[in-house]
Amino acid sequence: MNTNGLLRPQLKARRVHLDTGRENVVVISRRSKALRPEIFRGFSRVELRRNSKVLLATLLITDDDTLVGPDELGLAEPAFHRFAEPAGCLVTVTPAAPPDSLDAVRGKIRGRTLSASEIGAIIDDLAHYRYSDMEIAAFLISSASFMTSGELLALTHAMAEAGTQLKWDKPIVVDKHCIGGIPGNRTSMIIVPIVAAHGLTIPKTSSRAITSPAGTADTMEVLARVDLGVDEMKDVVTACNGCLAWGGHVNLSPADDILISVERPLSLDTREQMVASIMSKKLAAGSTHLLIDLPVGPTAKLTSAMEAMRLRKLFEFVGDHFGISVEVVMTDGRQPIGNGIGPALEAQDVMAVLANDAGAPADLREKSLRLAAHLLDHDPALRGGAGYARARELLESGAALKQMHKIIDAQGPSVCRTDLGTLTADVPAPDDGTVSGIDCLRLNRLARTTGAPIDKGAGIRIFKKIGDRVEKGEPLYRLFAFDQSEYELAVAATRIDTGYAIDGPPSAEATR
Amino acid sequence: MNTNGLLRPQLKARRVHLDTGRENVVVISRRSKALRPEIFRGFSRVELRRNSKVLLATLLITDDDTLVGPDELGLAEPAFHRFAEPAGCLVTVTPAAPPDSLDAVRGKIRGRTLSASEIGAIIDDLAHYRYSDMEIAAFLISSASFMTSGELLALTHAMAEAGTQLKWDKPIVVDKHCIGGIPGNRTSMIIVPIVAAHGLTIPKTSSRAITSPAGTADTMEVLARVDLGVDEMKDVVTACNGCLAWGGHVNLSPADDILISVERPLSLDTREQMVASIMSKKLAAGSTHLLIDLPVGPTAKLTSAMEAMRLRKLFEFVGDHFGISVEVVMTDGRQPIGNGIGPALEAQDVMAVLANDAGAPADLREKSLRLAAHLLDHDPALRGGAGYARARELLESGAALKQMHKIIDAQGPSVCRTDLGTLTADVPAPDDGTVSGIDCLRLNRLARTTGAPIDKGAGIRIFKKIGDRVEKGEPLYRLFAFDQSEYELAVAATRIDTGYAIDGPPSAEATR
Repeated sequence: MNTNGLLRPQLKARRVHLDTGRENVVVISRRSKALRPEIFRGFSRVELRRNSKVLLATLLITDDDTLVGPDELGLAEPAFHRFAEPAGCLVTVTPAAPPDSLDAVRGKIRGRTLSASEIGAIIDDLAHYRYSDMEIAAFLISSASFMTSGELLALTHAMAEAGTQLKWDKPIVVDKHCIGGIPGNRTSMIIVPIVAAHGLTIPKTSSRAITSPAGTADTMEVLARVDLGVDEMKDVVTACNGCLAWGGHVNLSPADDILISVERPLSLDTREQMVASIMSKKLAAGSTHLLIDLPVGPTAKLTSAMEAMRLRKLFEFVGDHFGISVEVVMTDGRQPIGNGIGPALEAQDVMAVLANDAGAPADLREKSLRLAAHLLDHDPALRGGAGYARARELLESGAALKQMHKIIDAQGPSVCRTDLGTLTADVPAPDDGTVSGIDCLRLNRLARTTGAPIDKGAGIRIFKKIGDRVEKGEPLYRLFAFDQSEYELAVAATRIDTGYAIDGPPSAEATR
Repeated sequence: MNTNGLLRPQLKARRVHLDTGRENVVVISRRSKALRPEIFRGFSRVELRRNSKVLLATLLITDDDTLVGPDELGLAEPAFHRFAEPAGCLVTVTPAAPPDSLDAVRGKIRGRTLSASEIGAIIDDLAHYRYSDMEIAAFLISSASFMTSGELLALTHAMAEAGTQLKWDKPIVVDKHCIGGIPGNRTSMIIVPIVAAHGLTIPKTSSRAITSPAGTADTMEVLARVDLGVDEMKDVVTACNGCLAWGGHVNLSPADDILISVERPLSLDTREQMVASIMSKKLAAGSTHLLIDLPVGPTAKLTSAMEAMRLRKLFEFVGDHFGISVEVVMTDGRQPIGNGIGPALEAQDVMAVLANDAGAPADLREKSLRLAAHLLDHDPALRGGAGYARARELLESGAALKQMHKIIDAQGPSVCRTDLGTLTADVPAPDDGTVSGIDCLRLNRLARTTGAPIDKGAGIRIFKKIGDRVEKGEPLYRLFAFDQSEYELAVAATRIDTGYAIDGPPSAEATR
């Protein structure tokens, strides 16, 4: 029996301008007679009810009547928007029992294997914001230690079911995904127009940068609008065979978005959760053929071929189960791909490749062609590995560039400031020699220090790659920034470590 | 290198009247140029610095200038008090790297056994509020699945070291602890005066109720002040050989207090963490001889003797390691002990037993004497199990009552309203028969519904125990409340289920 609140007076809803991220938070007065806030003791969970609407939220208590008075219930921004009831309306507030599915989480903590329906209930509660941050962490951590293959499948399925599910009236819907970590590497923006120009359907959604200096969505935003809703995205794909949209508005796997937002601050990174996360979005996106790019290198996310092989098997296992044809390729992740790092600089690389400019980065062009070829090979009309030749043909003929402009027009013009940073500095080689290594992590961090991705035009333009000979004082790369203090911090950081390993003395044979 | 904030402008500290429980929380304006709040994306972690002072906190973002302006840094209550710098002072705020010890937590999640120094670093960071709630949950959950005996010892040791450590200049310092769950059962308040009257040192600290209708600290507070600081507690023990203080101000295991505050909302309850929690406090309290009461019963925390036996072994293992003589007794946990449930009602029971009143509850008296006897047997002067006779002598002679008054005087007068609830209702037996069971969980919940422990005088007075014959309509117990709506809710709850199992028809043999 719910012995709480049935007879309690109600509180008046009030919007409180606090951004509490993904978590629902409400604020009540310590003097609120209705609630006896003493019993809640700081952070606790409450249930809000109005008519048939219910919301679970974490409770904060205030002594500040100007924020929330004794008869009021303050709803922080996310809670206010999700509850979606007008300010001033009366809301019943009671202590909340934890969601029933938390029993399964506790079982998992004790080492029990969860059933598909238990995992389904957890993901449903998660996706409906019924879990507190701590409860989300409990689920993540309990399943981070060990997950059976059955649990992995159930998790992937439940996450795909929890959000928007796209259907395409096509026998082949291709997609590609890279696990990230390599600066530059904006291949999707070249692959999509090539594949779409050929006539295959490729409804690509991408993420924004979380800890990197640019995500594909950030870079595409330099050229076009990316915050498409589901219907807009469908229209673009109908018109152009493909799109380059931000995944955030499409809501393909809301549970995954929530899980990621807790994984990130805890720096949890397990293979199973990564696979469930990616595959659930591809399932929901209606993909039939998926290409996965796993860069391997000393400063990449995967540092050995063995690690990459294990991950590949997991992707293939899940793909097989759900009937998605998954192809996993391991690529060179020893250094950045392309010359630009940061949204505007990367967009310049992409457009240079598509326009067949003489100065376009060859590594980005070549990698994009190879990956596009894998996707084109799924077209039964292209026999015996003709995909590569076709991809090159579409690129060199300008068909891909034309398709890119069509996609940009369909998505709408960019509203961002896209000029390059006005504060620039060239970072010189400290010695003569040959570039033997480039630290991807360090260059990513450096590009973020310059202001990317918030300042679209901030970042790094690389002049030297592995194997290149350099002379002392010759620039390795150029920094771009707008903000003076960020510029100075970035320059100072390069004086400690350029991120480049240079072997000397140089010999005639050192050039590749 | 810390590339953030070195050159950033500082923000003006401002106190924000938000009670965020144990967690440090700060609020900044979305328009704060200094911080570029976009990069923080809602809940995230920041580091506050002023001179040599550092505080880690979770970040909230606001659009409300009246709460926190663009040049200001709002500190919610706990953060404001812990940072302990004046409002208006300038504070440097930078994104915070997670504490280094979180690497060990991630190792534990992946199944690694932690070293004593890793566990020490985790507990040190925890005790200094450097972990977010999610990070605390990560540690708890990773160690809830499995903990080696070495990890258990290291955890106990680290938690004991993290707070106040009491030293007593005595060869024998006794203590007792009950794992809780049984309504009433206020034996400590009888045991302490008996043992102290005998001359043994018993510096007892107790907790307040968290989910129960009364903790020993709540009940003692009806009779005396309980929020003693360390020095006050030492003075009382010097004067009286014992005390009955609230543990909250003594700070014996701050890390444990923090862990419990996260365990509770997650309803995590593992044996190892319970043992580390209890034993760390006893170690810090300087106890040499510890008696642990494990009530066993169908609605108690332990439902089988086997479970209790496993827990007993864990307590003995840790006690042996740290040189504390631990005695574990399993007791009858089938029903409440004493007649009162709720602070004032329980205090009446305690004083009735100490005063040798004819109507004093015999079960509470008998259990207290038995437990006190175990402790007195540690006195070398009492040979061959003379403890029980000595305990009874001290009780019956009035020496224990006198000692209790001495302790009450030393701790200072109660400042609580301690009269019984004015709204009362007798709950009748629905049928003739014999009481065959009492649901401890249900009576605890019912007593909380009446308003206990917030209303000291709210609660339940029990008239019938297991084995008692009842006639239909005869009162099983009486409810006491002050608040009309709580009273009505409690009465309504008893109509659904009294919490009593009554077997009928009654026979002459049914009485025990």
